[in-house]
Amino acid sequence: MGIEIERKFLVVGEGWRGLDEGVTYRQGYLASRDGITVRVRVAGEMGYITIKGASQGISRAEYEYAIPLNDAIELLDTLCDRPLIEKTRYRIYWQDLLWEVDEFWGANQGLIVAEVELTDADQLIQLPDWIGADVSEDPRYFNVSLAQFPYREWREE
Amino acid sequence: MGIEIERKFLVVGEGWRGLDEGVTYRQGYLASRDGITVRVRVAGEMGYITIKGASQGISRAEYEYAIPLNDAIELLDTLCDRPLIEKTRYRIYWQDLLWEVDEFWGANQGLIVAEVELTDADQLIQLPDWIGADVSEDPRYFNVSLAQFPYREWREE
Repeated sequence: MGIEIERKFLVVGEGWRGLDEGVTYRQGYLASRDGITVRVRVAGEMGYITIKGASQGISRAEYEYAIPLNDAIELLDTLCDRPLIEKTRYRIYWQDLLWEVDEFWGANQGLIVAEVELTDADQLIQLPDWIGADVSEDPRYFNVSLAQFPYREWREE
Repeated sequence: MGIEIERKFLVVGEGWRGLDEGVTYRQGYLASRDGITVRVRVAGEMGYITIKGASQGISRAEYEYAIPLNDAIELLDTLCDRPLIEKTRYRIYWQDLLWEVDEFWGANQGLIVAEVELTDADQLIQLPDWIGADVSEDPRYFNVSLAQFPYREWREE
């Protein structure tokens, strides 16, 4: 098992574009209960299944296994909840930290967020100037939430 | 993916005992939704994660992956629903078919069932004399049900 400690921010402006070519992600959830999620992901030509425990602040237990690409595609197409999450992930190294910028498509088009993984929950980090509000603890931005209540339906806000 | 076609029977009598030494299984469910289940299993010294689709009659899509034993133990101990399913599985070859006899412990103690996997849903099979009622389509005997409403609580029947 790993413990994931990460922070998530909204992305503002275009300063991050062109820093990585990006990989297409397509993912969905088989089931979720009490914050425990079972996710299937196709990332480029790779398939994965990932189990995450309930969040405890910004920490979360995570178990990830590579699975055959064709299995992952079948699981997404036949068993995962709708809508699927579709996004392009850009991996950007900035001042010794890896920022993962997710530009969403489909039901979540218009949303761009950036995640950074920390080694310690109290770690101080410098923010690139294209980083906006910290949404780490806002459950609407959890990918599992975006699969149930996608960004394009957030009309009233 | 595989498609599972199997029939499940109650076991009567003791004629099956001594035909295999048995392996201890400990398993639990991470989540289930609309008949889709995500199961973690420790079988002897091996760990597995298994995704099954909803049953269609006695057929069911199944995806199984080996995972590290320690991950499987952690997932069972920390994330899976209670009670866990505990059983000893005996693999018995009888007239060219493999019978898997599950003798349950813990919350399901007293229950013994036998499953046989078929190549075809209409296949005719000979039954050993320790085979009782066909419970293939009785949802109470699904392992996922036994984890929610275990056999020892079936008092009123």
